Amino acid sequence: MTASNGHVVPKRVQKHPFDQLSSEEIEIARQAVLDARKSVILFRNIYTVEPPKAQVVKFLEAEHAGTLSPDTPRPARQARVQYDVVYDDRSHEYLESIVDIATGKEVHLRRLEKGAQQSLTVDEFREFTDVCVESEMFKKAIRELNLDQTKFEVAIDPWPYGGPDPGEVTPRYTQGLCFAKLRHENPDTNHYAFPLPIIPVMDTYKKEIIRIDRLATGGAEDGLEYGTAKANVLAHCQPAEYVPELLDIPLRDDLKPLNVVQPEGPSFKVSDDSLIEWQKWRFRVGFTPRECAVLHDVQYDGRSVLYRLSLSEMTVPYGDPRPPFQRKQAFDFGDAGAGRAANNLALGCDCLGVIKYIDAMLVDSEGKPSVSKNVVCIHEQDNGIGWKHTNFRTNRAVVTRSRELVVQFIITLANYEYIFAFKLDQAGGITVETRATGIVSVVNIDPGKVSPYGNVVSPGALAQNHQHIFAVRIDPAIDGHENTIFTEESLPMPMNPKTNPFGNGYEVVRKPVTKSSAIHASPFTNLTIKMANTNKINPISQRPVAYKFIPSPTQLILADPESIVAKRAAFAHHHVWVTKYKDDELFAAGEFTNQSQKEIGGVADAVSRNDDVENEDVVVWNVFGLTHNPRVEDWPVMPVEIHQLQLRPADFFVRNPALDVPSNKNLSSVEVGRDQNGTCCQADTAADGARNGNGSVQAAPTSHLQGTDSVPVAEVTGANANGH
Amino acid sequence: MTASNGHVVPKRVQKHPFDQLSSEEIEIARQAVLDARKSVILFRNIYTVEPPKAQVVKFLEAEHAGTLSPDTPRPARQARVQYDVVYDDRSHEYLESIVDIATGKEVHLRRLEKGAQQSLTVDEFREFTDVCVESEMFKKAIRELNLDQTKFEVAIDPWPYGGPDPGEVTPRYTQGLCFAKLRHENPDTNHYAFPLPIIPVMDTYKKEIIRIDRLATGGAEDGLEYGTAKANVLAHCQPAEYVPELLDIPLRDDLKPLNVVQPEGPSFKVSDDSLIEWQKWRFRVGFTPRECAVLHDVQYDGRSVLYRLSLSEMTVPYGDPRPPFQRKQAFDFGDAGAGRAANNLALGCDCLGVIKYIDAMLVDSEGKPSVSKNVVCIHEQDNGIGWKHTNFRTNRAVVTRSRELVVQFIITLANYEYIFAFKLDQAGGITVETRATGIVSVVNIDPGKVSPYGNVVSPGALAQNHQHIFAVRIDPAIDGHENTIFTEESLPMPMNPKTNPFGNGYEVVRKPVTKSSAIHASPFTNLTIKMANTNKINPISQRPVAYKFIPSPTQLILADPESIVAKRAAFAHHHVWVTKYKDDELFAAGEFTNQSQKEIGGVADAVSRNDDVENEDVVVWNVFGLTHNPRVEDWPVMPVEIHQLQLRPADFFVRNPALDVPSNKNLSSVEVGRDQNGTCCQADTAADGARNGNGSVQAAPTSHLQGTDSVPVAEVTGANANGH
Repeated sequence: MTASNGHVVPKRVQKHPFDQLSSEEIEIARQAVLDARKSVILFRNIYTVEPPKAQVVKFLEAEHAGTLSPDTPRPARQARVQYDVVYDDRSHEYLESIVDIATGKEVHLRRLEKGAQQSLTVDEFREFTDVCVESEMFKKAIRELNLDQTKFEVAIDPWPYGGPDPGEVTPRYTQGLCFAKLRHENPDTNHYAFPLPIIPVMDTYKKEIIRIDRLATGGAEDGLEYGTAKANVLAHCQPAEYVPELLDIPLRDDLKPLNVVQPEGPSFKVSDDSLIEWQKWRFRVGFTPRECAVLHDVQYDGRSVLYRLSLSEMTVPYGDPRPPFQRKQAFDFGDAGAGRAANNLALGCDCLGVIKYIDAMLVDSEGKPSVSKNVVCIHEQDNGIGWKHTNFRTNRAVVTRSRELVVQFIITLANYEYIFAFKLDQAGGITVETRATGIVSVVNIDPGKVSPYGNVVSPGALAQNHQHIFAVRIDPAIDGHENTIFTEESLPMPMNPKTNPFGNGYEVVRKPVTKSSAIHASPFTNLTIKMANTNKINPISQRPVAYKFIPSPTQLILADPESIVAKRAAFAHHHVWVTKYKDDELFAAGEFTNQSQKEIGGVADAVSRNDDVENEDVVVWNVFGLTHNPRVEDWPVMPVEIHQLQLRPADFFVRNPALDVPSNKNLSSVEVGRDQNGTCCQADTAADGARNGNGSVQAAPTSHLQGTDSVPVAEVTGANANGH
Repeated sequence: MTASNGHVVPKRVQKHPFDQLSSEEIEIARQAVLDARKSVILFRNIYTVEPPKAQVVKFLEAEHAGTLSPDTPRPARQARVQYDVVYDDRSHEYLESIVDIATGKEVHLRRLEKGAQQSLTVDEFREFTDVCVESEMFKKAIRELNLDQTKFEVAIDPWPYGGPDPGEVTPRYTQGLCFAKLRHENPDTNHYAFPLPIIPVMDTYKKEIIRIDRLATGGAEDGLEYGTAKANVLAHCQPAEYVPELLDIPLRDDLKPLNVVQPEGPSFKVSDDSLIEWQKWRFRVGFTPRECAVLHDVQYDGRSVLYRLSLSEMTVPYGDPRPPFQRKQAFDFGDAGAGRAANNLALGCDCLGVIKYIDAMLVDSEGKPSVSKNVVCIHEQDNGIGWKHTNFRTNRAVVTRSRELVVQFIITLANYEYIFAFKLDQAGGITVETRATGIVSVVNIDPGKVSPYGNVVSPGALAQNHQHIFAVRIDPAIDGHENTIFTEESLPMPMNPKTNPFGNGYEVVRKPVTKSSAIHASPFTNLTIKMANTNKINPISQRPVAYKFIPSPTQLILADPESIVAKRAAFAHHHVWVTKYKDDELFAAGEFTNQSQKEIGGVADAVSRNDDVENEDVVVWNVFGLTHNPRVEDWPVMPVEIHQLQLRPADFFVRNPALDVPSNKNLSSVEVGRDQNGTCCQADTAADGARNGNGSVQAAPTSHLQGTDSVPVAEVTGANANGH
């Protein structure tokens, strides 16, 4: 079979609907666009179109039933191609084509809504620096700063422009945060220690610096006005190196190796590079340029749990009211793209043990396939005790460890890093973990001053107060696609002779969410969100099968609701959004965040449809964040700040699903300062027990606490019965 | 030197003031009491008296200065002896003696306040069962239940009596939760699956069952009254085994071993069995029968951080309003004692890697020393990435792992388990972690019924809704003992042309706590508690050196404020308490919780002194909890539910204290499905780098991302600059 463009198309494309495009598929899509458009000047992305859910579900049903065959109808394999064209008048247009892979034909062409701006590309960032250094306006600004040219060169971090001010009409812009970099033989000297108080702004298409914003460098007493003279702004700054060979202190030499060794290999199985099977879990890892790793079709023990799980968006507004810092507000998924910003992970650095890496298929600016190696890693880890009980009558202890499967990726956004992980456990739990690290964003501050808008973390460097607000998109499929979301609150009951005579009682109030809604976290009522299937009742509890989570009551966006900053992040105003499923509705702050002045097509718009969501195909969005008023300890690279969203089964199973995890003794553990075969373990020999998982011996029947005669104290210890 | 009781006393007792008593010291204390009292019938505890802080601080100053000598004045070594005496009229009295070890003399005798009850002992629990099975009242109650004697025997879990009802005058009581246990060759068959609807109550000193409380077994429709007939209450119950050999499902056989191997041993050093040094941390691990492990004199890099850190108390009230469940309210530290209930940990079961165990010195009922082995374990673990930054210009990544030192203990209280851990990290952080596991407390429920007061987790077994509310006592010593507590809140600022022209600004409001106070968590203002030393200013930020934590906004006690349940747990009404330090004031709910009707001498009383706490020796108490409305998945043994209190330095250091952690490549990690020496790591050979910590090679200068020529995609990936 030959497509119209002459490319050979595989007779029957057998890729999974969630799979990334192959390089051949990218070539087909690219050629189709080049054939249809004459004036393409920049390819931004080419990636899989996720087919309509209705089609995918039919395919998955066959897959789950084991009835897939070459003749099973498959959703059409399509590519989304995002690119710019230029016209004779030198004006640009951003376009999006859908190309059918099998036919090699463009089947849809989309023009961008007026004013919307696509995410930024690396080429645009590169150009920014090139344009800056050639700009007379910029050169003049730098001259005014009177830098010691023998000591410093200028380093520019391109940033998205943020939200234009009210009434400001903007073409496509990029702004740059400027620093001085020590002239040093080591290119990794940390320029962030030397912030320059200027922000150049570039007209992206004209490739012209159109303005230099001057930054205040004052302190608490200076209001929003500029501080003192701008010459000599670096005189009081100090280097703040973090690469080990530049540190002014020795590295610790007393940290002994700690190795994670899996002599029999990992417990997970990978097929087709995307299907993961591990400890009754089965799911696919997808990838998009915007979201990076996405989990699809998540099942436990053959039962559906989630249709799709993804990091959807985040925004990072800065709380320094001095203009132009209102435009320091990044949407790292919409403005940049987590998949395109993902680190290429290195063995032995980003995780321990036996690791499976997944590559991403991206494209370069010519639309040619470009593999980004190791953007996602998958590995197992130990998370301490999973469950334990000691029978105080016999002193028999049964203890299992909690093994987790981690699907991790790390993104770098100029100065800053995020580590995202989906963690699945043996008890049916799924945790979405975010770790914030990297270098906090600093601006210049005059010598000796302090500021209410941040913390001086290094001489001359003010780390501004800011927030990180994340949105996770949860598309549940709790034993099927028709689900109902419940809120569950634990409420006090007044003391009352009839209903609560001694006042200890409290009530648990469950309410279904009937219409698409926004919900605030409510920790003091223990507000829990339950994603339930009311069509399937747990035979033990007689309640609907469900998964639950407690929305973290983190601080929501602090910006004034009437501000541009707040309006472009409507999603950041509530902790939970419940919407009716709609194909392609994936992004909490809407599709186009770059230079937005308000959120369009995000969760707030989705909720405003006022859809029925009871016993429907629903999507739950969880928003959480971190108000980050920096500490000196966050400098020069901050220790991770961790947040976890914990999805847990709630009457989904008929008992603890981890009950069948072997309670094995790990034989590689060693005791300090006592004979290993001595008092600690009665049956501490490998031969005594059946080898069973965990490379270990069945320890349970031989707990050293067993029997009360041999160790007198065990009676005291084990039998202190005081239960709950 | 010979004490008056004839025991040889070491000429100079050189034990550290925080150390546990030796067996010799216990013998001295015991003998002193036996000499002074003729009628001791039961020893409860004999343990170290923690000397007055003023004395200890002087000693510690010498210790820290390295000037300790045999002639350094030491606080007197003293033992606290808790015991019962019986008088001619057969009445009991609880007494407490302080014995000076050096002289072997009782130096203080304390009589118990009227109505106060000491914690329970294992002997009392044993007696309970003995008395029950002999009691005609109990036998009659069992007969009424018409149990199949060929199938079942009765198993009783003794519990503290809880709070007596208003107006109820009680001698010392114990109550028992009753279950039927399958007659089975395996003694670890799980009796909790067969709850019996009776609670016998024993007069502890008379050794007499004085009452059988009958329990309601009804459902939602039955109000607080009894359910249906009490015969045949087990007909619908089903076994719920958890010991592996009794499971009705096979154990998983696809979990491969995951070993933590430390070929060069641990990175920590233990001296005197109590002094721990690890990664710039230095502290002592103490032990008390009530609190179990306690951290003393916690220093980082020679600077004082904490004087003492302990789990102080917890309460577990049940929310089922049907009498007598108002008396299901345990105070596991005050009623039982975490140290006495601590598990004897087993190598390879409770933690991985290289483990140091610490034993506890307890006493038996005759006051004889009895060693409880391995009640505390200390080990290192990996906690993922500690900090990371990738320079997008050079693609050079520097990534460190976060190593933690864990001091862990586990307590069993009849059906339930708690895992407590103090975790210290390389970035100056201290985390207090609690994990709840074990078997949830169930009561009988009629067939087919459901209840608003809990969840049916097994046929006939209703797991009642309840709360776990913990109190951690933090005695800070931030660069000294005179500290000030600040609240810090992030608050919105209205948009205003002068102060916040674009509305993005927010303000951070810090206020000192001037008087002893109770404080509520306030997540929506990002309320942060800072423990600061205003006498010492961080030279970078010009702010006082401090440690901070964000109090978890967990639900507080739900019981009606006028209820006995709520009154005896006044501590559970606020998240943070700030009190002025007072010797021996260690327990959030007061010293005597057993059968209390209100909290006496707890944090609420301490706060009511209205002390000045600014720039004083202050204590901070953090209260957090878990409203636990059980899931079916919590049965028969629940997967751990984890909470963390995170103490973090905040302008205590002049930069990230983990900056000098080597960014080493772990050489034991293995890649799945690709040549290990292939595409993943450019310099993946051990010989290339300096061996430095972590058994690893200096990876930093050879990140595989370095250089943009070799891997075209790295340019796309690394340079997607979009910062914060």
